[in-house]
Amino acid sequence: MIAVDWGTSSFRAFRLDAGGRILERRAAARGILTIEGGRFAEELLRQVGDWIAGGATRILMSGMIGSRQGWQEAPYLACPAGPAEIAAALVRVPFDGAQVLLVPGLTHSDAAGTPEVMRGEETQIAGVLGALGRDGIACLPGSHSKWASIANGKVAGFATYLSGEAFAALRGHTILGRMIKDGPTDPSGFARGLARSADPGHLLHHLFGVRTLGLFGRLSEAESGSYLSGLLIGHEVRAALAHGGGTVHLIGSTALCALYAQAIEACGAQAEIHDEDAAARGLAMIGRDASWN
Amino acid sequence: MIAVDWGTSSFRAFRLDAGGRILERRAAARGILTIEGGRFAEELLRQVGDWIAGGATRILMSGMIGSRQGWQEAPYLACPAGPAEIAAALVRVPFDGAQVLLVPGLTHSDAAGTPEVMRGEETQIAGVLGALGRDGIACLPGSHSKWASIANGKVAGFATYLSGEAFAALRGHTILGRMIKDGPTDPSGFARGLARSADPGHLLHHLFGVRTLGLFGRLSEAESGSYLSGLLIGHEVRAALAHGGGTVHLIGSTALCALYAQAIEACGAQAEIHDEDAAARGLAMIGRDASWN
Repeated sequence: MIAVDWGTSSFRAFRLDAGGRILERRAAARGILTIEGGRFAEELLRQVGDWIAGGATRILMSGMIGSRQGWQEAPYLACPAGPAEIAAALVRVPFDGAQVLLVPGLTHSDAAGTPEVMRGEETQIAGVLGALGRDGIACLPGSHSKWASIANGKVAGFATYLSGEAFAALRGHTILGRMIKDGPTDPSGFARGLARSADPGHLLHHLFGVRTLGLFGRLSEAESGSYLSGLLIGHEVRAALAHGGGTVHLIGSTALCALYAQAIEACGAQAEIHDEDAAARGLAMIGRDASWN
Repeated sequence: MIAVDWGTSSFRAFRLDAGGRILERRAAARGILTIEGGRFAEELLRQVGDWIAGGATRILMSGMIGSRQGWQEAPYLACPAGPAEIAAALVRVPFDGAQVLLVPGLTHSDAAGTPEVMRGEETQIAGVLGALGRDGIACLPGSHSKWASIANGKVAGFATYLSGEAFAALRGHTILGRMIKDGPTDPSGFARGLARSADPGHLLHHLFGVRTLGLFGRLSEAESGSYLSGLLIGHEVRAALAHGGGTVHLIGSTALCALYAQAIEACGAQAEIHDEDAAARGLAMIGRDASWN
């Protein structure tokens, strides 16, 4: 089986053996936004045509490739949903030479009736169920961070936080950016922003501190970016863990997960960081549950 | 006396009689950022030279003209401070033909020791003390909204919320912007965003609803911008009034003040909207307390 995680900005493929182990992997900066004229089939052949020629007959794909902007829409599946429910809702796309199936995203409504969506993350979450067990919390930090509660081995519900994109917009397009010099994460700045997120007062007020602390020479340009990051991540994590903690299973880039783990531990919860192959493991698990014919 | 409110992006001048009544007014898009090479004296002459030639000998100026980027820095005065304390801390700048004094901004530290600053707003607040009385709340909505608590006729403390600038950055530079069509305020969209701000969950989570409600066809492009505005203003007002309400004295543009008044009333408090001549009235009051020689 070939497992493909095809997102907005990148394409990752894994050749798996019958037991779901990764035999070979490939990555390319060929996200769906870079594919012109809907030539997804051509691109798939270009990336993994040799694996297909070598005998692979099943291709399972997750991510934005199943969105309205992708190859074909795989409609959102309502929570609660786990690997078995996802496997039963795969969408077949026409392709010569192999069976190609798309993983649907998930949707959920909060108590106030506001909808939520994820696409791709459901597969990564499936990939950590082995470690997470049947109940727990998964967090996928990023531009649009997802926090999912897992119950009985299924995604029971989830919430998205715009923290990553808000950081970029505030950093790049407000007066706060003038106080910030880009650079590697500054541990002291991050810790100070994280501590500030626990103070009374709203995020919209805390943000202005990036400016005033800088004006009074109490926050350096090298610290300011990490302070802003600590402030946003701290607010997100505190809000997400407001109703209880335990162990949070983090899935994402190592550097970002380490910052989230620090924030989670500052809130009195525990963090376990998973590698970025969670998508491949999730696709293997969903693939096992799927009917391929 | 000539009262000048000289900010980052605009210049406003008022010719006042001895009783502080406005005899004549002028405005120009000549904020301090548009003045090259520090030629503030030349610009002042260009704007009100005829009033000086006509006999005005005293010019009192508030706003960013007294900042490090302005004519000369008038150092921040610590709270609590009212018109008398401000009048005692005016800074004289050299100018031929009239006495020119700068109003200092105010500073304050919150319980956690994070500093706050305002410059220009202290003068507008002085201008509404007649209506506000000796104790109450003033709010100056805008890019950096200020909420000040007034006690014994002085600004006791204040907090800044980055709501206006955050709106522009989120509107212009995140995925939310794709859901938004610019246009006049949509009352239904604003009311829905305002209501959403009262739901459980953090602002960073609520923001994503602009996208998901749009994706599911439950929020139109015409409503989305006002929904985002209602969400941010609602969060700001709820946070600012968390420790009690009463009457909030709003100072600013009529349209923005009306939206804030709606949010304040939704929180169970009252709002009173003041006109934009508050700065002129505040300068008159400070000018009366000032020693001009």
